[in-house]
Amino acid sequence: MPENRLDEFATIFYTKSHAVIGASADLRKFGGRILQVLLTFGYSGPLYPVNPQETEVQGMKTYSSVKDIPDPVDFATITVPSQAVPEVVQECLDKGVKAAQVLSAGFREAGEEGVRLERELAEIAAKGIRIIGPNCFGVYSPDGGITILPGATLPKESGPVGFISQSGGYGIRVPRRAEGLGIRFSKVVSYGNACDINECDLIEYFFQDPQTKIITGYIEGVKAGPRFFKLLQEVCRTKPVILWKGGLTEGGARAVQSHTASLGGEEEIWDAVFGQTGAVRVTGLEELLDTTLAFLHLKPQTGRRLCPIGGGGGIGVAASDSCERMGLEVPVFPAELQKKLMSIVPAAGASARNPVDVGGPGPVPPMLRAVMETVATEADIDIIIVDEIDMTMMMSPGGQAGRPPELINERARVPVDIRNEFGKPVVMVMPVEAIGVETLESEGNRRRIRDYYLEQGLPVYLTLERAARALANFIGYHRRNAILSS
Amino acid sequence: MPENRLDEFATIFYTKSHAVIGASADLRKFGGRILQVLLTFGYSGPLYPVNPQETEVQGMKTYSSVKDIPDPVDFATITVPSQAVPEVVQECLDKGVKAAQVLSAGFREAGEEGVRLERELAEIAAKGIRIIGPNCFGVYSPDGGITILPGATLPKESGPVGFISQSGGYGIRVPRRAEGLGIRFSKVVSYGNACDINECDLIEYFFQDPQTKIITGYIEGVKAGPRFFKLLQEVCRTKPVILWKGGLTEGGARAVQSHTASLGGEEEIWDAVFGQTGAVRVTGLEELLDTTLAFLHLKPQTGRRLCPIGGGGGIGVAASDSCERMGLEVPVFPAELQKKLMSIVPAAGASARNPVDVGGPGPVPPMLRAVMETVATEADIDIIIVDEIDMTMMMSPGGQAGRPPELINERARVPVDIRNEFGKPVVMVMPVEAIGVETLESEGNRRRIRDYYLEQGLPVYLTLERAARALANFIGYHRRNAILSS
Repeated sequence: MPENRLDEFATIFYTKSHAVIGASADLRKFGGRILQVLLTFGYSGPLYPVNPQETEVQGMKTYSSVKDIPDPVDFATITVPSQAVPEVVQECLDKGVKAAQVLSAGFREAGEEGVRLERELAEIAAKGIRIIGPNCFGVYSPDGGITILPGATLPKESGPVGFISQSGGYGIRVPRRAEGLGIRFSKVVSYGNACDINECDLIEYFFQDPQTKIITGYIEGVKAGPRFFKLLQEVCRTKPVILWKGGLTEGGARAVQSHTASLGGEEEIWDAVFGQTGAVRVTGLEELLDTTLAFLHLKPQTGRRLCPIGGGGGIGVAASDSCERMGLEVPVFPAELQKKLMSIVPAAGASARNPVDVGGPGPVPPMLRAVMETVATEADIDIIIVDEIDMTMMMSPGGQAGRPPELINERARVPVDIRNEFGKPVVMVMPVEAIGVETLESEGNRRRIRDYYLEQGLPVYLTLERAARALANFIGYHRRNAILSS
Repeated sequence: MPENRLDEFATIFYTKSHAVIGASADLRKFGGRILQVLLTFGYSGPLYPVNPQETEVQGMKTYSSVKDIPDPVDFATITVPSQAVPEVVQECLDKGVKAAQVLSAGFREAGEEGVRLERELAEIAAKGIRIIGPNCFGVYSPDGGITILPGATLPKESGPVGFISQSGGYGIRVPRRAEGLGIRFSKVVSYGNACDINECDLIEYFFQDPQTKIITGYIEGVKAGPRFFKLLQEVCRTKPVILWKGGLTEGGARAVQSHTASLGGEEEIWDAVFGQTGAVRVTGLEELLDTTLAFLHLKPQTGRRLCPIGGGGGIGVAASDSCERMGLEVPVFPAELQKKLMSIVPAAGASARNPVDVGGPGPVPPMLRAVMETVATEADIDIIIVDEIDMTMMMSPGGQAGRPPELINERARVPVDIRNEFGKPVVMVMPVEAIGVETLESEGNRRRIRDYYLEQGLPVYLTLERAARALANFIGYHRRNAILSS
């Protein structure tokens, strides 16, 4: 990995001046939407709309060619029809533009003529202008003030997660969905057909980027297999790489072909990639975000002994099933410890073998605290999971539900206190119980308490199944690295 | 199946008079909560609290024993400590009570003394009183005016789904979660340790019950394997039985042991049950409800050729992967049809091989309609899936997003119209995109549009993966029955 990607890609992620070529007043067009989105997001450098048919677009002075812009231009967004793209990129090169993102589609994915156009583009790129795309939604770099299409309202705040996406759709869907989970990004790149800058270049960038601690990606196919393989082996030793590979089934591979014209399929090859590089394999958007949440909040961890603490019956059964299906362990507690726990929980309806069942979904806070303290100090357990215990309401000690509701109540605080006092990782499972329109406020409360846990650094999952899968991914990564470095 | 379960269990599901033995003013106790819950739910027959220590409980005249009630009593709910239960049940038998639900825990699941007590209970039951439980949350029968613990606010309205649950926790969680999806129940029974009435008796009841069209259950272990097996073979020919078997892993089986003391585990046996009876196997609460939704809304269906219609890039790839992983097909369209579809969708960014990508998440209604009409009439497709097309907002034709928002807008109506006009099943995928606290109103809109589709009989799923799994379960059931009857 000889190149210094940080300097090389600075123009893209922290660009000083930006031309939008194909800028339009029509918001149905890429050239209209991207300009509007950049303006809304608040790009702070000079922004130059370019369109030979207009003198003003969205209230801004508009140039007929990039060459007519009197000042230097670092970066260009290109949205003109595919046939016109090579000429426009050549003009950018002549103007001294250092990099461009080509949002236009109609290249390799669209047949022979497109293949020819894309080859032409690659040839111009090789002369000295770096290209993202074509057939992509562009770059989101909060610290650089630019955003992906249509990400006008994505957070301005940056974070430790890098995301590359061969798909424009997931390029926007992932950061949008992640926002509500408190996941923040260093950069997101929708890189489409990758005629020049490809997944390897971007992973190298993220590897070198001190802002990026966790690398994530949606990939349909890679350009240079051996380089990709070797790169992942190196990167995964110090930064986790979480990859969702789309198009592993026959139909999926076919869809890849008409989407970004990459080579999908070949499940065996990808089995080898994940098996031998340490990259973390996920199979969908939810799992990608769930797994990222574990890496974001938990300290490196190789132990896989879990203690789910739930409230009510079948919960414990389902918890054990979910954990063990993922290769995690729910070890039976020694008799002595079971006895101690049974002296804390109500005699009837509870269970203390592991999982621990506190007898109902709404345990009184001192009881929940005593159970968690006992598990945290006396059990050979690596992670505690608080499974579907209702944190949104609490009966008052007298038994009447009269006390004014306090959202982050005594019960809700117990898991955070235990994590803080004993340093034991605690993971929360909080399902959306209230799914009706009329129960929106109760869903609002769930989200507020979820946000409290996320702020405190406790990962929150919608189901125990998803928690177990994310933890298995997380622990698996660290176990592998522990073995390699031992 | 000789017995007439309908008459036999009428006392339970449509009881005329009801004693609550162990009734209490203390809402932390089962005897306090169940009485409160029954009163709130609005049981219309005479309700008699029984508690030797009280003369009035929750404002109602209270009897010291069931024998002191001057009128006939049909049914009893029993919440006294386990040691006292046999005597109380004997008194019920003497009084002429026909059936009882025993909520008290502390029986077989709690060691030797509990095993003895439960045996005693079974012996009394054999003398002429039917028992549900012990160690359960009771019965929810909307038409009978009784509800499960703590289901005070469950719908009064009944529906075609029967649910039995060995777990009290899922006994309430399933109907509560189902409510927001418009799923309504004929009866729900949390049957716990099943000392008398067991899963077979209840499935027989649901099989005979004209109100129940779909039988669902959470089961940890069965009492009489061969009877269960034979029963399912018979029932599944005419009514679908959707079962979630808890405790299939080693840890899960252990949790079952301390929960309802059933024999869990033995995955091979359960593989045979599901393989040879036609019962539909699900592995969690979400899949149980998702699958029920398919049976509820779709006509019997053996074809498994799907056409996912999505808006934007990787969606099509993920859709194909999800469908094919579940054994469903996403067949490539003939060139002619692809060409026709490509004349409808925008040239760039779209795809028409199947899946169909309409180019973006917000297609204009006439385009979406033309695509769906073409697929419905010209493609060899069994089910259309509308995958993550944004129904909550719509740009006005002029390109400005100025038009006042109309929730069930022109775009949202297209899938319903297509289903109505062409009789082709249409399934919706509507993810929760907005998961932040501040976007609650947008989640509210998503739920309102979801409810519109559910009212119109279009199943709605949160992800395409979940839609594909539910459809695979549904189609698999009907394919099996088609083969058997051919």
